[in-house]
Amino acid sequence: MTGKAAIVGGGVIGAGWAARFLLNGWDVAVADPDPEAPRKIGEVLDGARRALPMLYDRSLPGEGNLTVSDDLEAAVRDADWIQESVPERLEIKHAVRDRIEAAASPDALIASSTSGFKPSELRQGAARPDRILVAHPFQPVYLLPLVELVGDGPNDPACVRAATVLDGIGMYPLTVRGEIDAHIADRLLEAVWREALWLVKDDIATTEEIDEAIRMGFGLRWAQMGLFETYRIGGGEAGMAHFLAQFGPALKWPWTKLMDVPELDEALVAKIAAQSDTQAAGLGLRDLERLRDNNLVAILRALKAEGAAAGRVMAAHDARLSRPLADGPPMVTVSRVVPSDWTDYNGHMNESRYGQVFSDAADAVMVHVGADADYVATGKSYFTVETSVRYLEETHAGEAIFVETRVLVGQGKKLKLGHAMKRASDATVLATCDQFLLHVSLETRSSCPPDPEVEAAVERLAACHAD
Amino acid sequence: MTGKAAIVGGGVIGAGWAARFLLNGWDVAVADPDPEAPRKIGEVLDGARRALPMLYDRSLPGEGNLTVSDDLEAAVRDADWIQESVPERLEIKHAVRDRIEAAASPDALIASSTSGFKPSELRQGAARPDRILVAHPFQPVYLLPLVELVGDGPNDPACVRAATVLDGIGMYPLTVRGEIDAHIADRLLEAVWREALWLVKDDIATTEEIDEAIRMGFGLRWAQMGLFETYRIGGGEAGMAHFLAQFGPALKWPWTKLMDVPELDEALVAKIAAQSDTQAAGLGLRDLERLRDNNLVAILRALKAEGAAAGRVMAAHDARLSRPLADGPPMVTVSRVVPSDWTDYNGHMNESRYGQVFSDAADAVMVHVGADADYVATGKSYFTVETSVRYLEETHAGEAIFVETRVLVGQGKKLKLGHAMKRASDATVLATCDQFLLHVSLETRSSCPPDPEVEAAVERLAACHAD
Repeated sequence: MTGKAAIVGGGVIGAGWAARFLLNGWDVAVADPDPEAPRKIGEVLDGARRALPMLYDRSLPGEGNLTVSDDLEAAVRDADWIQESVPERLEIKHAVRDRIEAAASPDALIASSTSGFKPSELRQGAARPDRILVAHPFQPVYLLPLVELVGDGPNDPACVRAATVLDGIGMYPLTVRGEIDAHIADRLLEAVWREALWLVKDDIATTEEIDEAIRMGFGLRWAQMGLFETYRIGGGEAGMAHFLAQFGPALKWPWTKLMDVPELDEALVAKIAAQSDTQAAGLGLRDLERLRDNNLVAILRALKAEGAAAGRVMAAHDARLSRPLADGPPMVTVSRVVPSDWTDYNGHMNESRYGQVFSDAADAVMVHVGADADYVATGKSYFTVETSVRYLEETHAGEAIFVETRVLVGQGKKLKLGHAMKRASDATVLATCDQFLLHVSLETRSSCPPDPEVEAAVERLAACHAD
Repeated sequence: MTGKAAIVGGGVIGAGWAARFLLNGWDVAVADPDPEAPRKIGEVLDGARRALPMLYDRSLPGEGNLTVSDDLEAAVRDADWIQESVPERLEIKHAVRDRIEAAASPDALIASSTSGFKPSELRQGAARPDRILVAHPFQPVYLLPLVELVGDGPNDPACVRAATVLDGIGMYPLTVRGEIDAHIADRLLEAVWREALWLVKDDIATTEEIDEAIRMGFGLRWAQMGLFETYRIGGGEAGMAHFLAQFGPALKWPWTKLMDVPELDEALVAKIAAQSDTQAAGLGLRDLERLRDNNLVAILRALKAEGAAAGRVMAAHDARLSRPLADGPPMVTVSRVVPSDWTDYNGHMNESRYGQVFSDAADAVMVHVGADADYVATGKSYFTVETSVRYLEETHAGEAIFVETRVLVGQGKKLKLGHAMKRASDATVLATCDQFLLHVSLETRSSCPPDPEVEAAVERLAACHAD
């Protein structure tokens, strides 16, 4: 499902939302009075256009249409989803909401990116409070899946509708059971932030050392399991109740200074800013964003391959991007962008990834002829016996590529595929691959004829691809 | 550098330490009075033997010698590193320390895994307090690099010596500037834990929902950048000081209940344990550990490829594992374990990873003949023009493999390599690859002769590998 999204407030959060919707095929109208808004949104979009398509092993739908203007009413008119990301002051939120309600279509959902306000506050004095909710995302909005949905709990129809939309743009909607200041994640972040400020103030650690204490240790755990699942394992054979019994008493120890808020005076601000400068080692904002995005792409793709955590969300979205193959010729078996984690230090696609693309192309053929996972489960499969790859041109991270595949031989247990990998922009052939496969029984581990339907499908393709 | 490590206390933390040292070539003596200790340590070791070697693209050194007994004095005698991981009660720590001091060699470092005590407390009444320090690791100790070192600050000679040892076993020692209860990371964790307990108690979220709020959002950020670097980017073009000015006031909002410790009464313990059971969906401890380890391996390897965060630590350790090639024949160009992220859903090594192994084999030849990164920087390189792979046998995650490479043709700008990938356990040939490379100028993008020294090295190998 796609539609029109209105993004009210085009700061870094609003621009991230715009990118998410736009790259998933929605039309997007951004309303922001800042004359610099088009430039700022353009820069976030550049980052998103580079990084988001890399998460998937299939092409995203074509971009929708983007407009940026200062005309809020025009932006929200006919929009299906309205996302408000204006400054965190309730009187501003209410004034903007009144203008949105007056101009929007009656069915539109009105979501706020707020971390500071609860839905009951946003709904005060609204004409149609039942369609107003919190949809709180996390930076970078175009890569991180989490969105906290807050309304009247999981059965609130606005939350249910919103979850479907967010699911469709590859996000992970988490509906909060009850409203509370700052929802869930920001409460946890706030707790860490206060504690970290004390550690810097008291010279126990610098900002860089605190960052290392996180990313060399529990940050790695939390990218894949959360707090409770990690501690469940931590409890060992005795389990969660044992862990609680052991760890519980420590809660009473006077470790944290958390309600004792450090004064963010000039001296502490200067100290943190100076330590942060040292840590950045001269890298600018765009450099840091690019490093962050490359790291997130690599981690998310690693988790996708494991079918775990945020990787499950990517995998589900990838599956939705799948289209049935046309017999051709040409039969386009792969259509994708080269992700940054496929390149070597020169930024060229690594030699071995050519093989991966051709392996994916063969997998697509397998599904097309009915030799898919269900077929493999019956104890039969095609095994690759030999491949021969010719490397013709280099290719780079972010480039769109596709593979055309021909069935050169499809007879009995023998299958020979000819693949050509091409650059999408100009159809230059980047590499070719001849791939010889044999149909085998997974029990005897020796070759055998395929099932009649599979054999017929292979023969049909071979006939269709013969010159 | 390797030596002998004594592990005093063989619980899950002690066993993790034992695995780290042992798999990095140290002799390890574990002292634990629990008659179940050998079994428990064996189970942790099984996990470590499977997962730790997968982090690296080269073989780890051969395992050291392991003993497990209840004889503390015998274990610590002649040890270079003594790691104490006994229960968190100071009188127990002091009693064990006295026994260690009496039996250990005078140069041995005595490190404690404690999170609950400061080095000044551990050193009270010690004969040689200057060699006693905190070395606080994180679970799973065999995969996560972080170790908090706490003594008298970064210049404490015990901390400096300890950092060298930990570096040598692939860990990331972080020396804390001043002693404080719970050091750094556990203070941050404690803050999150208290807040999370309130969220469960008050029915804002279940344990699973809190875990999702972490791993779908900020957990992904924290695996690669920490708190401050993330917020530096969050500040956008205006930078860190702006971020502090914007976020600072929120610190005074009454969000967190952190000093108001929830009573871990029977009802709350039962609630958390029940929610955690639901979340685990019938998976046992070993299943969860395996999922966790596979995810961590995949994330760490992704970060290694990016040269980022914990990946930098892996890469440095990998570089130390490098050994110069022998000309042969046979010339062994790759020696490694198949990591879990290289396998498909059947657990077989994915077809495209065979290509990666052969590509790595060619890279090793390049370094050996002097066509290394420095040479490429002068504008010349070998490019792969064609590869032909024959797939003979399947291989699985965790299996040790090696590649024997022959220079079949090495004449002028032409180089042809013949690779054979073999299973380490029985030398079965798993796959072969013929690889044809051309020497090219990176400026003209056309072929040209290599530098004389490189050409001579290639010709020498070709002669040496001719039958």
